[in-house]
Amino acid sequence: MQMIVYVFIFVDLALALFEDPAVIPMPIWGTSLVEMICLIVFTARLFHYAKVIPRIRFWKDPKNICIIVIILVRLSLIDIIIYGSLKSTGYNAVRWSRVLRPLLLVNVTEGRQLRRAFRSIRNALPQILYVFFLFMFSMLLFSLMALKLFGKRNLFTVDGEPYFTNFLDIVFDLYVLVTTANSPDVMMPAYNYNSFFALFFILYILINTYIFMSVFLAVVYNNYKKHLKEEVRQLVKSKRQKMLRAFAVLQQPGSGEELVVSQENWNQLVHLVQPDISNAHRELLWSISDDCNKSHIGKLAFVQLPDLLNIQVITMKSRPHPLHIWFPLLYDSSVSRLSENAVVFYRAFVYIYDLIILVNAIFIGLDEENPLIAYAEWAFLALYLLEILLKLYTWEPRAFFAKHQFWNWFDSVIIVAALVGAIVNLCIKSSDGYTSRQILDIVLILRVLRLIRVVDSIKRFRTIINTLIKIGPTILTFGQLILVVYYIFAMVGMELFKEKVKYLEADSTDPYKDSCGTPLLRGTTFAKNNYCKNNFNNVVSSFILLLELTVVNQWHDILSASAVSHVSARLFFVFFHIVVVIIIINIFVAFILEAFFVEYTVEKSDLQTSLEKKIEELELSVDKYKQLSCPFFCLRAQQSVHGFKAVWLYNNLFHLFFSGYKTVDGLLQRMFEADLSLEDADDMDDPNFSNITFDSV
Amino acid sequence: MQMIVYVFIFVDLALALFEDPAVIPMPIWGTSLVEMICLIVFTARLFHYAKVIPRIRFWKDPKNICIIVIILVRLSLIDIIIYGSLKSTGYNAVRWSRVLRPLLLVNVTEGRQLRRAFRSIRNALPQILYVFFLFMFSMLLFSLMALKLFGKRNLFTVDGEPYFTNFLDIVFDLYVLVTTANSPDVMMPAYNYNSFFALFFILYILINTYIFMSVFLAVVYNNYKKHLKEEVRQLVKSKRQKMLRAFAVLQQPGSGEELVVSQENWNQLVHLVQPDISNAHRELLWSISDDCNKSHIGKLAFVQLPDLLNIQVITMKSRPHPLHIWFPLLYDSSVSRLSENAVVFYRAFVYIYDLIILVNAIFIGLDEENPLIAYAEWAFLALYLLEILLKLYTWEPRAFFAKHQFWNWFDSVIIVAALVGAIVNLCIKSSDGYTSRQILDIVLILRVLRLIRVVDSIKRFRTIINTLIKIGPTILTFGQLILVVYYIFAMVGMELFKEKVKYLEADSTDPYKDSCGTPLLRGTTFAKNNYCKNNFNNVVSSFILLLELTVVNQWHDILSASAVSHVSARLFFVFFHIVVVIIIINIFVAFILEAFFVEYTVEKSDLQTSLEKKIEELELSVDKYKQLSCPFFCLRAQQSVHGFKAVWLYNNLFHLFFSGYKTVDGLLQRMFEADLSLEDADDMDDPNFSNITFDSV
Repeated sequence: MQMIVYVFIFVDLALALFEDPAVIPMPIWGTSLVEMICLIVFTARLFHYAKVIPRIRFWKDPKNICIIVIILVRLSLIDIIIYGSLKSTGYNAVRWSRVLRPLLLVNVTEGRQLRRAFRSIRNALPQILYVFFLFMFSMLLFSLMALKLFGKRNLFTVDGEPYFTNFLDIVFDLYVLVTTANSPDVMMPAYNYNSFFALFFILYILINTYIFMSVFLAVVYNNYKKHLKEEVRQLVKSKRQKMLRAFAVLQQPGSGEELVVSQENWNQLVHLVQPDISNAHRELLWSISDDCNKSHIGKLAFVQLPDLLNIQVITMKSRPHPLHIWFPLLYDSSVSRLSENAVVFYRAFVYIYDLIILVNAIFIGLDEENPLIAYAEWAFLALYLLEILLKLYTWEPRAFFAKHQFWNWFDSVIIVAALVGAIVNLCIKSSDGYTSRQILDIVLILRVLRLIRVVDSIKRFRTIINTLIKIGPTILTFGQLILVVYYIFAMVGMELFKEKVKYLEADSTDPYKDSCGTPLLRGTTFAKNNYCKNNFNNVVSSFILLLELTVVNQWHDILSASAVSHVSARLFFVFFHIVVVIIIINIFVAFILEAFFVEYTVEKSDLQTSLEKKIEELELSVDKYKQLSCPFFCLRAQQSVHGFKAVWLYNNLFHLFFSGYKTVDGLLQRMFEADLSLEDADDMDDPNFSNITFDSV
Repeated sequence: MQMIVYVFIFVDLALALFEDPAVIPMPIWGTSLVEMICLIVFTARLFHYAKVIPRIRFWKDPKNICIIVIILVRLSLIDIIIYGSLKSTGYNAVRWSRVLRPLLLVNVTEGRQLRRAFRSIRNALPQILYVFFLFMFSMLLFSLMALKLFGKRNLFTVDGEPYFTNFLDIVFDLYVLVTTANSPDVMMPAYNYNSFFALFFILYILINTYIFMSVFLAVVYNNYKKHLKEEVRQLVKSKRQKMLRAFAVLQQPGSGEELVVSQENWNQLVHLVQPDISNAHRELLWSISDDCNKSHIGKLAFVQLPDLLNIQVITMKSRPHPLHIWFPLLYDSSVSRLSENAVVFYRAFVYIYDLIILVNAIFIGLDEENPLIAYAEWAFLALYLLEILLKLYTWEPRAFFAKHQFWNWFDSVIIVAALVGAIVNLCIKSSDGYTSRQILDIVLILRVLRLIRVVDSIKRFRTIINTLIKIGPTILTFGQLILVVYYIFAMVGMELFKEKVKYLEADSTDPYKDSCGTPLLRGTTFAKNNYCKNNFNNVVSSFILLLELTVVNQWHDILSASAVSHVSARLFFVFFHIVVVIIIINIFVAFILEAFFVEYTVEKSDLQTSLEKKIEELELSVDKYKQLSCPFFCLRAQQSVHGFKAVWLYNNLFHLFFSGYKTVDGLLQRMFEADLSLEDADDMDDPNFSNITFDSV
């Protein structure tokens, strides 16, 4: 069901590719029909949702109202009818309802993370606005000063226009200076006139670019954190209350006065909540909850359950190697064992392959059409394949390709893809005598990607990369956020500025070919720099143009030219800059900062510590056992997962790896746990429970 | 003594203005003589310092060794002699010892804050380097990919040069792209060829510009904070140990078993430590330390003393207004009282003047040569003067111009300066019939600065501004840091690139006037944009050029042209970018972030709370009294200081205002107090004391 809704949202958004101004033109009845179908699906989904949840809650939820309004507006067809009729009579019509499309993505029930991001922006808005007003005030003061200082001096810009004589132009120029896009240019006439005037611009940049932009980051960061903390607090509170209710259902009188839950009930509950949990993992969790081996646990230990389940423990079944089963004599022979110990497991092996990768990097840099280099490439491919095969020979294949073995997967996929690509390329070449550029491109990219592997063998790099991989899902949330905002701005931009600038191919016969198809741009920087393709003529180029505006450099040239009309383009950009650069990019930066701080500073929680201790205890007891008689594959499996603690539970052939948290929510909860525990203790409904929590803290 | 050392360091650094390449040329024997004198002063200072402190500590301190080496190198004259002799024989000589000059500023005993900043950078360096290597690695991979993808496609840049064919050029272009300085340009040839290639650049910008730059900020921020915390911890620890030793000296047996310090001794100590403390302030502090009125305090309360003294309590003597003394009848008349109550104190007065300022802003925007506007300006000046006089009429002058009354000072200085400027301008104009541009500039700037006043009447703006004012001293430390780094880079840049580019006045007859005096730059963007003044021909223009490089936009144009020689210029900039933009600017951003977080989140300490409570208690008792009979000037003084809590101690005519911390160290200590208190309790030498601290936490 979720997938279907997402597919239809995607189709709905993708319509922009086919609607006028289109990448791939389609008749208007076609796009309208598809849009209708999408809207019907969304309506059906909404009806279904309304049936499932209570009526009062449905009407109280602002997101449902929002969806209904959007669907009604778009279903009413007013927009399409007006557009169609105006279009047919030759008028320039505006389809403003397209702006509403991405809002559906935000309001669908599944977009929880995205809504959270929007909510946190909304909550930070008043604070941001105050700083923004102060920033605007400072900008206006500087503009006034610039007008008074430079306006009467008869200075001229490089283009021969009067310098700093119009107040509104000055304000805009100084706004651009905040983004550093016109950095030395705007200063040069004054600086050439008198070196002391550079002071004015230095002061301006210091205050408005450096200090105010940092203050924006501080305000956005602080509000984002505060809001997140409040949300997590609510989450933790409701979770604990639910667990207390569950306890009330399962409780039974214990040995003393206290009420307890038996191991049996607990096991059943865990099975219900997480059907795929392994026995070893469950037993480990129970042994932590039931510290004194009483085979029942109290209220406090019971409430911990969701936190325990939230800690990721990777369970790995330790099976004998298939070759060991099929060819036991060969696989256990002393030569084979030597190769395992001497080659695959030890540092030398890693170093040799790092060296091979470096040599490979140099070879990639050389001309690939030289036959010698082409042959060397095959040799490298063979070496990489050999490495994977050697690893597979010593590690149990299912352990090697376990879900969490990111780098093994990465290696194998890249190498196999490169092999396939190279062979396809060879086939095409030998049959046609002609190299397909597309396939060659892919092969070349795969070759370069292979080099990333080096990173994994340096420990310091690995921690940074691991942090980045961990925040991957949240970066995706920001991707959605950016998509929504870009889509809205692209729609508005296309309606306002489409076809103002044209990109003409080299063989075009247009008289204004060199000035982007319009006489207005003749001789401008825009035309000279070949920027003609930066326009709002279709969705794809609009998105790329917006990305360039996000990066900010040269945006005043790009925008003033691609829009040709001045004032609306300026307003468009200033608004875009505030929303995307000042707010969203700062939230993005704030999130990365927070993620790295957590990685650097947050200590392990009590639960994590006790879990680790338990695992270590078990490992200790195993260590003793291992020295007696450990089959070779146990040693292997232990070394295969670096960075994690491996545990060898010999009796049930399971490995347990401890590795951080499963979800972003879990991480966030840990981040704020220190601040939360005390507050929650006070908030708790049950007075007894509050005491217990308090003691445990 | 301190002042003298600073003056000579300043003179030493300022020598760069007079040495070749000079702003104001001076003969070589002149600058050498001044340099000699400076060096002799530094040596004398060092001898003096060596006599005062123990010999072992002197030789253990790396900064002393550093100073000795610098002075020896520079005193040996080798540098000057080689330079002079080579110069006289016509060779191009390099004076490399000038690079050492700013290091003296760092190593002088007084530069503690600056040294701390350098130490924190040094400690953060390994972490930064790891991220930097990873960043370089990612950049090299992308460059390799770009070479493979675009190198064989026969694309050309706007200048007609082959696009992405040389690996090292690609690396440099992509490094520039990280700084966003060549943002769309570097992409355009590939994008024009095929829209899909935009993906390559989008991915590159996302990873290297957004993610890696944020990671740099995170690493710098985190290390900076960690290091600062450790330094503050050491400071707090040594402070407490010193206080314990002081207690051991002053202690005497108390009522029970515990040892105490009597009020008499405590008073003496406070008088010794802070001779200018007011009696009211001292009594307030004592009443907080001695909670139970026992007229002696225990160890714990004694140790608090430095923290108590660190909390800023503004003491204001409440004197009767001079007019009240001189013309009591007139000043106390009912008309006079009406004016006080109805005009100056109430909101209406503030609103009216805000409105006047806004109208004034519009008038400033208009043409000042119009006689009507010029007359209006006199009217505004009169209005502002009237405001200050009215305020002085109602407030006691010494209270109005107290040290902490920032805005009163600001207003008065600006208005009086504007008045003086306007009168001088009028005199010159009426005598010569000619307006001096310089004086007019100053008058105009003062007029605009007057508008800043509006900010103070909006509460939200005031808090932001107050935070910025508070971090002012630390921004000065960063200013010194930047000065040191800029100076070194300017010296190196001047030796490498001087006279490569010349700025020629409009009336010059040089054949290459339009291309900055060199045929190499004919037709380049650099020459076309009038960038000729961006050169390394003297210290001032070098500093401004370095500032432009810090802002980063257009730097590749600026640098490649102003240096003309390519490779050294590239290395120069990359190094400059790493040091200034990646490290120092990030520390600057980190500090502003931290300051705002403290402002937003850190709660008051126990001591602060008890101090405030005490002040409030006193105020409560006064409030009752005030209703009986409060002289009018008490009401006045209380309302004069907004933002602070005012206390009226009627019996001794003192006002106490509570307002945050005195020093940056105090603020820092508060920031980390929560984390420090427990650790310190464990570290304490005295076991009894450790318990006491722990209880109090």
